[in-house]
Amino acid sequence: MAKTLAVSPLAPAAFPDLPVIGGVRFAAAAAGVRYAGRTDVMLAMLDPGSTVAGVFTRSATRSAPVLDCQDKIGHDSAEGAAIIVNSGNSNAFTGRNGIEATRAVTHAVAVATGLPEERVFSSSTGVIGEPLPHERITAKVDQLVGALDETGIAGAARAIMTTDTFPKGAMATVDLPGGQVKIAGIAKGSGMIAPDMATMLVYVFTDARIARADLQAMVSDINARSFNCITVDSDTSTSDTLLMGATGASGVTVTAADTAFTTALEAVFVDLAHQVVRDGEGATKFVTVEVTGAASDADARTHALSIANSPLVKTAIAGEDPNWGRVVMAVGKSGAAADRDLLTIRFGDVLVAEKGWVSPDYREEDGAALMRQPEITIHVDLGLGQGKATVWTCDLTHGYISINADYRS
Amino acid sequence: MAKTLAVSPLAPAAFPDLPVIGGVRFAAAAAGVRYAGRTDVMLAMLDPGSTVAGVFTRSATRSAPVLDCQDKIGHDSAEGAAIIVNSGNSNAFTGRNGIEATRAVTHAVAVATGLPEERVFSSSTGVIGEPLPHERITAKVDQLVGALDETGIAGAARAIMTTDTFPKGAMATVDLPGGQVKIAGIAKGSGMIAPDMATMLVYVFTDARIARADLQAMVSDINARSFNCITVDSDTSTSDTLLMGATGASGVTVTAADTAFTTALEAVFVDLAHQVVRDGEGATKFVTVEVTGAASDADARTHALSIANSPLVKTAIAGEDPNWGRVVMAVGKSGAAADRDLLTIRFGDVLVAEKGWVSPDYREEDGAALMRQPEITIHVDLGLGQGKATVWTCDLTHGYISINADYRS
Repeated sequence: MAKTLAVSPLAPAAFPDLPVIGGVRFAAAAAGVRYAGRTDVMLAMLDPGSTVAGVFTRSATRSAPVLDCQDKIGHDSAEGAAIIVNSGNSNAFTGRNGIEATRAVTHAVAVATGLPEERVFSSSTGVIGEPLPHERITAKVDQLVGALDETGIAGAARAIMTTDTFPKGAMATVDLPGGQVKIAGIAKGSGMIAPDMATMLVYVFTDARIARADLQAMVSDINARSFNCITVDSDTSTSDTLLMGATGASGVTVTAADTAFTTALEAVFVDLAHQVVRDGEGATKFVTVEVTGAASDADARTHALSIANSPLVKTAIAGEDPNWGRVVMAVGKSGAAADRDLLTIRFGDVLVAEKGWVSPDYREEDGAALMRQPEITIHVDLGLGQGKATVWTCDLTHGYISINADYRS
Repeated sequence: MAKTLAVSPLAPAAFPDLPVIGGVRFAAAAAGVRYAGRTDVMLAMLDPGSTVAGVFTRSATRSAPVLDCQDKIGHDSAEGAAIIVNSGNSNAFTGRNGIEATRAVTHAVAVATGLPEERVFSSSTGVIGEPLPHERITAKVDQLVGALDETGIAGAARAIMTTDTFPKGAMATVDLPGGQVKIAGIAKGSGMIAPDMATMLVYVFTDARIARADLQAMVSDINARSFNCITVDSDTSTSDTLLMGATGASGVTVTAADTAFTTALEAVFVDLAHQVVRDGEGATKFVTVEVTGAASDADARTHALSIANSPLVKTAIAGEDPNWGRVVMAVGKSGAAADRDLLTIRFGDVLVAEKGWVSPDYREEDGAALMRQPEITIHVDLGLGQGKATVWTCDLTHGYISINADYRS
């Protein structure tokens, strides 16, 4: 069962006012997949001429819906498209039964919408290892199709929540020479939680006209700098899915070279990614890890993830302890190039360590004051080269242990 | 300050009765490096003709004593050897000052014992980033040399403790065609703890006569199957050190091909490694992760470490939750080869999942009963090949968070 958790202290003040995206409509329904008294299925319907792109978990044990999406993505089509998502059951590690359940759902949507089945994408999130009660979902498909509405995106954001403590949305408008285009996205995810695996699911829509290959290039590229740069607990879901649809309803054509658009899209992706971290299980601190001066960008990312995933760094942050020694430790263990005597470490704007030792000007009370803030930046300069990377994470608290260990599934 | 922690519930009943190893003597002293009212320096003195081998942390930010040991190890010598170890200060991330402090200590021991300085090995464990008060240690060297005693190993085991909740020792005797040889070892380590980094330090002694190259080969080989197979929280100390001395006092020559000896030595290493896990911060469960059927041994180890280091697996174990879905997740994210539909998972002797889905015979109450035991084995078979690996770890509990986050250093 989903538990009622207090809203994260790092949550945004309110769900944003997302713009209508011409050419896409939404509906949500309560199918009773697992949860009672709430919506748990959403349908997004994209008009003919829309292009769809996506990125997916790299897990070797990914779920049936992910495998199905991966089969379907990457083909051009003049047809519309549909995305159907249920919460409450992830249809992961369900063997051949899982493939059949996914087919049953996408087939029902295809029949109800007149789309070819290969244009119906699906995601499932929730408990794993239990058969998806697909008949509860297919029973609601006609109702969903009948309820499709261009203003329904906020309801869709709520229907896909599992143990999220708040719905996640982000938007942008971009003024281009050909006219204005809009972007709106929703996401869910808060780490992974028993018995649910709190998969990260992201759906982004724009009324720009974008060729499929260009859309895929943008999504893959920007994903690498947004959702691929967050970590709550280093654990990877078997269901992570990001789908983006471009309807073209604005009549404005955009390519991957349009930096005004890609910059705005990156801001939307990063905003949603940050919201997932802000809903991290037990999180009380939003942490930015910036690494510069590495031998390469790849090395910088390795160091940044080593710091962001270190239980000792994360517990120090929870304890508001400016424990730079643990940052040194995490750099040292990462496997990427580092020279102890060239390391510079800052917490926020407080210079903590330089040239392999604590800075002579560092005062513990400055570090401690910085660590009491709800948003913290750890900056490490390797002093070796030009490589840089930024990763976002949260602290590791009693709340995480309580959510994940204090009850039986 | 070291805190007084309750002895781990996984601790052995008592410190073992370690045999005297001919040719090696021990002393301990209270130098007041950081702790009051306890011993904090130990000296081990090996007779001329002894060989010494070692393995060390691979951290890129390793401490001055580790760098010094690495410079000195690997040379043949007819001289004796000394090992001096202090607790309370790790002399890590202390810049050039750290190198000078290490030299001051090893120089004092060399003068007091008549050994060349390159035969004096040192380790330091405790707080990082603070200058080692080496004069407190050197002031005790004459006292230590005067107190050397072949029965002093248990006192040495206590002197090297930081936040360990119990001293760690293990022994073996081996009857060989040429006579009996003995092995005795001590260790410290319990994860990493603020403000101390609870470095793993291991010192093993035998009265067998072993050529240095053979000793190094044995130590490296067996280390890979013992200390390199444990993980408390995936964080790597900047000071980890294992030194082994072979005095030859038994008159019995042993080579790396003597499997009776290497088998006994491996048992000693594994025993000490298990004791480090049993003293893991906040540990309430001793967990063996066995992976078989992987495409290679390396793949098996990658999967085993991914499972053992997963916060979600570790919290599930803390919660006595037979959450096999998290094991699937950890296999999927590891990056090593896996086929979801060939996976078999057992908790102890309970078959939980097979062929990509929960086993038809699995009953949740059987899994739950198994998880209530203090020692748990998770067995995963990949169904792909002959690769196998075993890793030992502990659970992730509120105790870990309390130790690492609930107070400021």
